[in-house]
Amino acid sequence: MAYVNPAGEFTRDQRYIATRITADGRDGFPVETGRYRLVAARACPWANRAIIVRRLLGLEDALSMGVAGPTHDERSWTFDLDPGGRDPVLGIERLRDAFLARYPDYDKGITVPAIVDVPTGKVVTNDFAQITIDLSTEWREFHRPGAPELYPEKLREQIDEVNEGVFRDVNNGVYRAGFAGTQEAYEQAYQRLFARLDELSERLEGRRYLVGDTITEADVRLFTTLVRFDAVYHGHFKCNRNKLTEMPVLWAYARDLFQTPGFGDTIDFVHIKRHYYEVHRDINPRGIVPAGPDLAGWLSPHGRDRLGGRPFGDGTPPPPPRPAERVPAAHSAEPSR
Amino acid sequence: MAYVNPAGEFTRDQRYIATRITADGRDGFPVETGRYRLVAARACPWANRAIIVRRLLGLEDALSMGVAGPTHDERSWTFDLDPGGRDPVLGIERLRDAFLARYPDYDKGITVPAIVDVPTGKVVTNDFAQITIDLSTEWREFHRPGAPELYPEKLREQIDEVNEGVFRDVNNGVYRAGFAGTQEAYEQAYQRLFARLDELSERLEGRRYLVGDTITEADVRLFTTLVRFDAVYHGHFKCNRNKLTEMPVLWAYARDLFQTPGFGDTIDFVHIKRHYYEVHRDINPRGIVPAGPDLAGWLSPHGRDRLGGRPFGDGTPPPPPRPAERVPAAHSAEPSR
Repeated sequence: MAYVNPAGEFTRDQRYIATRITADGRDGFPVETGRYRLVAARACPWANRAIIVRRLLGLEDALSMGVAGPTHDERSWTFDLDPGGRDPVLGIERLRDAFLARYPDYDKGITVPAIVDVPTGKVVTNDFAQITIDLSTEWREFHRPGAPELYPEKLREQIDEVNEGVFRDVNNGVYRAGFAGTQEAYEQAYQRLFARLDELSERLEGRRYLVGDTITEADVRLFTTLVRFDAVYHGHFKCNRNKLTEMPVLWAYARDLFQTPGFGDTIDFVHIKRHYYEVHRDINPRGIVPAGPDLAGWLSPHGRDRLGGRPFGDGTPPPPPRPAERVPAAHSAEPSR
Repeated sequence: MAYVNPAGEFTRDQRYIATRITADGRDGFPVETGRYRLVAARACPWANRAIIVRRLLGLEDALSMGVAGPTHDERSWTFDLDPGGRDPVLGIERLRDAFLARYPDYDKGITVPAIVDVPTGKVVTNDFAQITIDLSTEWREFHRPGAPELYPEKLREQIDEVNEGVFRDVNNGVYRAGFAGTQEAYEQAYQRLFARLDELSERLEGRRYLVGDTITEADVRLFTTLVRFDAVYHGHFKCNRNKLTEMPVLWAYARDLFQTPGFGDTIDFVHIKRHYYEVHRDINPRGIVPAGPDLAGWLSPHGRDRLGGRPFGDGTPPPPPRPAERVPAAHSAEPSR
């Protein structure tokens, strides 16, 4: 939830529900097929990570997914895209209900992604950073054949290190810029964001992916911010030194991932824009949603194959999304002009 | 003044004070050297026209200039840049005082550019569209040797026609997008803006200037919007199909003019950004001013000379700005990174 401290800095409430769903069930929630439901929103970059990882790993049958609409009121995410405005599996109208089912006095953020225990209707966790790691490491039994290793043991230290800087300066950095309450706090976030993007750009100039020569959790995390950059962060959050399209290495890197099965096919630009511009009335009072930017470039050749790399390592790309989980063509980056 | 009608459309109050300063003095205000003072603000695109035209024509000695600061409250433009917060010639703190001196009950917009009759302290006109035309046609006696013909008789019909579309869809179109009260009104303005920019881009592909083969009033009017496009209109007014830098013809055209004496040397990007982002709290409630965009590109080669054209026709470029009228280097497009 957005919160500005006395120095005018945006601080993210990071007190998530830390219960984990694990293979050994040590927190009382063992990995089981069909028992849990991932609640996501295509608008949200944190939920987008989980949508991508679930798809890359082929967990669709084991872990079903409910999708909240792009906008919400102060009581948070709702299932307004579903017939009757209720999630068909959980039978609830608002994600909040699953949080209150577990903690009747819950007063922290109602956030996506969240995983709900279907039999009890109680939320298990909304700890977004742990959720994707656990999908990779704890849910192995249900990975599809050919699922990639997104968090390989021998690279974890490197991945964690990259992720830390990316989270602070990029994933969360754009929010720090956009919700800053003072000019000084904004400028600090802006400087750190672009310094980090410059550094990442340099890193990615000669290598196809952030860590190792395959797609990892680190790429998923950077991608979900980059894909929103020009559509939202550049204007709405004032991250406007330049557009992503003006940073050649990062733009090619982002397009490469976008065109990789499991990434671009999870992206709903209509949901993304509507969410930020309609919900954040504190920084966009009239709720007008920009008609731009032109998205056609996302499908243009990226030329990153020349760097080598094996996107899925010893694995294979995921098949196309299930029909029920497809992003409408009009919401994606089809050439629209 | 910003005003949104019941259909959510921004409508500009165009009831300006239509008194003219003419060679024959038919409205009671004959052209005279030293008698009048142009009040401008570097932030404002409408005032920027007058600043440019005055400079191109070399009217600095005949018509002095007062410059208001970039921000203002509901009582409008103030002379907060001047020592003691007063215009040194008019002796007033607020431009409003000159309007009230003439019309004690004045209740329309206090706008720049305005021309004030120094002996009486009364505003003569704030009719921005007429002001620049009159500087070209009525103030001839005081033009510098080599002053260009910005509104030549044989091209007036063409210039007026271009200006009409540019005003409606571009100069005022960006405001219609930015201050729209409904999504529909915004999208209509956005479509018209970019349709017109595409058309202008096509027109300028094979010719250096909008009308004829020299700089005219038409170029001045398009320039003052283009130069603000990426710094303000793209983000703040949601004119974000693409940046000016992404429209190659218009971007080269704008750079060509920017690098022409009398254009870029009038541009104060700090004032421009501060004005829009600090004053329009209705669309930018926290008043945070974006640190971007990177402006270094304004000085890059434009390659438009290959199209021929004679920027000043039979005339010559103006000399550098007077020291007292120079934009501080830190506010201009000097490479800052």
